[in-house]
Order: sequence, then structure tokens, then C-alpha cells
Amino acid sequence: MHTVLILSRHARDYHRLVDAAHLPDLGITSTADPADAASHAADVDLAFGEPSLLRQVLPVMTALRWAQATWAGVEPLLDPSLRRDYILTNARGVFGGLMSEYVFAYLLAHERRLLERYSSQRDGRWDATHPGTLRGKLIGLLGVGTIGAALARTAKHFGMRVKGYTRESEGCPDVDAYYHGNQLAPFAANLDYLVSVMPATSSTHHIIDADFLRALPPRAVFINPGRGGVVDEQALAAALQEGGLAGAVLDVFQQEPLPRDHVFWRTPNLLITSHTAALSVPEDIAPVFIDNYRRLLRGEPLQHRVDFERGY
Amino acid sequence: MHTVLILSRHARDYHRLVDAAHLPDLGITSTADPADAASHAADVDLAFGEPSLLRQVLPVMTALRWAQATWAGVEPLLDPSLRRDYILTNARGVFGGLMSEYVFAYLLAHERRLLERYSSQRDGRWDATHPGTLRGKLIGLLGVGTIGAALARTAKHFGMRVKGYTRESEGCPDVDAYYHGNQLAPFAANLDYLVSVMPATSSTHHIIDADFLRALPPRAVFINPGRGGVVDEQALAAALQEGGLAGAVLDVFQQEPLPRDHVFWRTPNLLITSHTAALSVPEDIAPVFIDNYRRLLRGEPLQHRVDFERGY
Repeated sequence: MHTVLILSRHARDYHRLVDAAHLPDLGITSTADPADAASHAADVDLAFGEPSLLRQVLPVMTALRWAQATWAGVEPLLDPSLRRDYILTNARGVFGGLMSEYVFAYLLAHERRLLERYSSQRDGRWDATHPGTLRGKLIGLLGVGTIGAALARTAKHFGMRVKGYTRESEGCPDVDAYYHGNQLAPFAANLDYLVSVMPATSSTHHIIDADFLRALPPRAVFINPGRGGVVDEQALAAALQEGGLAGAVLDVFQQEPLPRDHVFWRTPNLLITSHTAALSVPEDIAPVFIDNYRRLLRGEPLQHRVDFERGY
Repeated sequence: MHTVLILSRHARDYHRLVDAAHLPDLGITSTADPADAASHAADVDLAFGEPSLLRQVLPVMTALRWAQATWAGVEPLLDPSLRRDYILTNARGVFGGLMSEYVFAYLLAHERRLLERYSSQRDGRWDATHPGTLRGKLIGLLGVGTIGAALARTAKHFGMRVKGYTRESEGCPDVDAYYHGNQLAPFAANLDYLVSVMPATSSTHHIIDADFLRALPPRAVFINPGRGGVVDEQALAAALQEGGLAGAVLDVFQQEPLPRDHVFWRTPNLLITSHTAALSVPEDIAPVFIDNYRRLLRGEPLQHRVDFERGY
């Protein structure tokens, strides 16, 4: 017999969805409140929820064997001062579609001059300025995991050329050319679009710095639906102010919500999307837990296991 | 020996592109000016250009055998008072990609609340309002020719369900359900998005009228990159004002440029894109003429022949 503690802002939805799967030998306890959770925590061997909430009860879940995160990013659980004597799995393979919609909404809006045309309309002007096209344009993906692969597939649908920068993997058929390690400058060369979907780790911290930004052509647009920590924000603001790149669309930041006095609120050609790119939807995430629970019962390795050292 | 009159705003580009194909037995004369063209027109058996310009020299092209239009829409040449003793072919099969970029730019912008989020940003607000998703949404295509088929393919890429309304054809594998004839109301039922890519003919004139608009759910968004004549513009403005549908994105109008006093400039939830959805690019269109010329030499039927009676 197993017992799972569901600790999530969407605890009711997750409880209903897991319950509906009629998983064998599973007791369910659920709450949105870490203080409430703490009183049950000693009895549970499984946990399922937001990393930021799970972190608060981690010390008292003495029987914990496996925790399934509802997010892709698990930084709150990676602090070296926290225990690592359990299996941690994250939510992967479910954000590709939403991320594609986000990224291509902004790529297409840029090519079609959507905001400029809307501004013309408000001025009562017939604006027949020619649009651009994604066809033939070059996109660079910083990170080619399941999300990067989904972006590459959509890029190919629209006839784009695709570069990928990865730690080592080269398995995505929609990526035309791979770059690794110190090949950041050749990766950046000639990009029309740069998209970062890298996890936040010590080796990706500020990987997008002044040097990297200088390697991009001035026509390039940078989209970041990944993690704020990969960007040197001051260097990015300076590059945009100086015309070193044409635009940026940022979903994530070093500090969120973005502080009111942050330079980004006054930076030209910058769009702020307030961490909405790919929200965890219980209907998408519950199946990840359910599938992994069945693997646990069968004694199989769990999917999407996080390497605490690597950070993802 | 054949001689083609290239009569186009892009006459130089077309001349260069056709010349580069080294077509046998072909003389080329080119101009952007119909008055200039008239002096050469009696000698040419072939014409290639914009229908609005070709119309002006049609009476004096006494030896004309075949005209290739650079546009998909050939209305200027369909006037019953004009001669029809030549083969007319139009540009087809080249606009699907651009049309997909246009339509999905606006579908994604709607789901992602792109304009609302931009407005929040200008007010200095962190706007974490949840976006929608195209996945599972229902799109209705009025017209499923080569452009409609390209739209259906992109809709499927984003996980949408697709209805098609056509005269008779049912050949597109990405359309889930077909509607014909008087089935406009069931076609309109439950649509999240309606896209018209119908040609302007007597049978499509004002097909989108008050009755049709009432059959759409209030959440629906209408996108028209096709032809303005298919829409009863007063009925559409009234529906938008009354909240009968959520929005419209219009590229084409009964009169273009849209007159300064037109109600659409003051209609809520309406975006005007000034006939820029899919501009004829010489690099895309020249190959259509070149391919058809080779067919002519081989004595094969030309592609994309227009039926003067049907109107496309």
C-alpha cells in the first residue's frame, strides 16, 4: 500500500484526476496548504506537487520514496542543503505544444508586423507595409529536450532552418546543425531568432551574456520562455537599447514578478509576457504521475527522473 | 516562336526570372505601364501580369492565346463584357504557406492575448492572465482549395479540429468534416474560428450575412484573408458591436483602401490588415508561368486554368 500527498494550488483537480484513474493500492491525501500538509507528511511515501510547496514539507516527509513535480523546473528542490535520498521526477513531454504556441505567436507577430499594423489602425491608416515570412529564416534553439524538439518541429512546418545548442544530445531529426560547449559564437551567427529553453543550472547561468549577444546579428529577435537565470539582464537591456538586436520577448526573469523599477519596463523592443508561456495544466500533468505510479508498481524505472547533480 | 508581354508592377523582376529560365522559342517584352504595353500588345500571343493591368490592354491583344495572372483572384478579367477567347490561368498553390503564417499569427495572438498583454505592459502591469490554446479548438474553413488545405494542415499541426465548407470537393485529409450547399448553419455551429478563403463569385457574394453570423457562437473569431465580397460588411459590423462574435481580422474589403469614413474603423474587436495577407512574390509566381509555358510547348493542358463561368 502506498500513500501520496498531493500538495498543489490545484490540489482538488489533481485529487479528482488521480482518483479517476483508480490506481491500485494507493491512498490519496491532498491539500493546497503546506502547513496542513505537514501533519500528514510523516505517513506518506509518495508526493506530487509544486516544487516550491514540496520543499516546505520535505524535512518532515520521513518515509518519502518518490516525488513527482508538477513543473518542468525543480530548482526549489535542488538546494544542496536539502535531502536527496528520494527519487525526484519532473513534468516533461507535456509543455511542447503550449511552448510552440507561445514561441510561434511571437515569431509570426514579428514577421507580420502585428503590433505596428495595430498601431496604424488606431491612427486610421491603411498600412500595406509588406510583411516578412518565417520561410527560410534561421532559428537557434538553446536546449533541445522535449520542448526544443517540439519547437524544431513547428519551425520545420513553417519552412525554417534550425540550429540546436545542446550539452551533448543530437537526437532531434528537425535540427539541421548541432553546436556544443564553446561553440556559442558560431551557434549565434546569422540567427534570425534565438529561443532559450535551457534549464537553470550552474553551467547555464548567464550563458546569454554581452559576448553572446554581440555574436547575434542586429536583426535577431530573442525569445525566452525557459528560465530567467540564463540571461544577463543588464547586458540584454543594453543590447536592445543600442540596437544590437531587434527585439526580445521575455517570459521569465531573475526576479518575478518583475520589480517595478526594473530596466526592462523601459527597454525598447522588449515584450514582457509575465511567466505565462506554458502553465502547468492538471489535465496534462496528472497523467505523468499516473503513468509513473504504474511503473513504480511494476518495478520499472520512473520517467523524467531528475539528476540532482546535473540539475534537470 | 512565342512572345510574352509581361505587364506588372514587378515587370523587371519577372523579366529577369523568366529570362533566367532560358525558355525555348520565347521573346519577352515587359513593362509596368499599360499605356506603354498597348503599343506592343498586337504582336504578342502570351501575357503574364496583374489582372487589373492586363484588363486595360485586353482589347488590343488581338493575337492573345494565353494569359497567366500573377494573382489568385482574377475578378478584373471576369467582367462579362470582356472577351473570353483565350486561356486564362491564375496563380495557385503558392499562397498556402504565407496564408498559414497570416491566419495563425492572428489565431495564436488571440489565444495568447498578445494585444491585451502588450497593453498591460505599457501600463507597467505584470499580467499573468492565463492564455488559451489552439489544441482542441474547432476551425471552420470556407473554401478548401490549395490555400484551405494548407490552413487545415497547420491547424492539425496545432491539434485543432477542422470543418470544411466546399462546393463539392472533399479531398483534403486534414479536414474532419465537410459541409456543402445549404449546410451553412451546421457548418457555423460551435466554431471557435472561421476563415474564409473563398473566391469572389456570384454564388459566394455576401455568403457571410446576418443569418450566417447568428449561427456562430459568440466566442468565435472570423478571419478573412480571401475576398471582401463574400462578407456583408454592415452585418459584420453590427455583430461585432452587439457581441455576436468575439472578433474579426479582415485583410480584404469591398472597397480598398478601406474608405476613411467606413464603419470598420470604429468597430470594436476588429483588426484591419490592409490586404497584406499573401502578397504575390515574383520568386514564387514566375515558376508558375515557366511551368505552364513548358506545358504549352509540349501541348499539355495548362495548370490552374480559370473557368470564366464559375469564376475561379
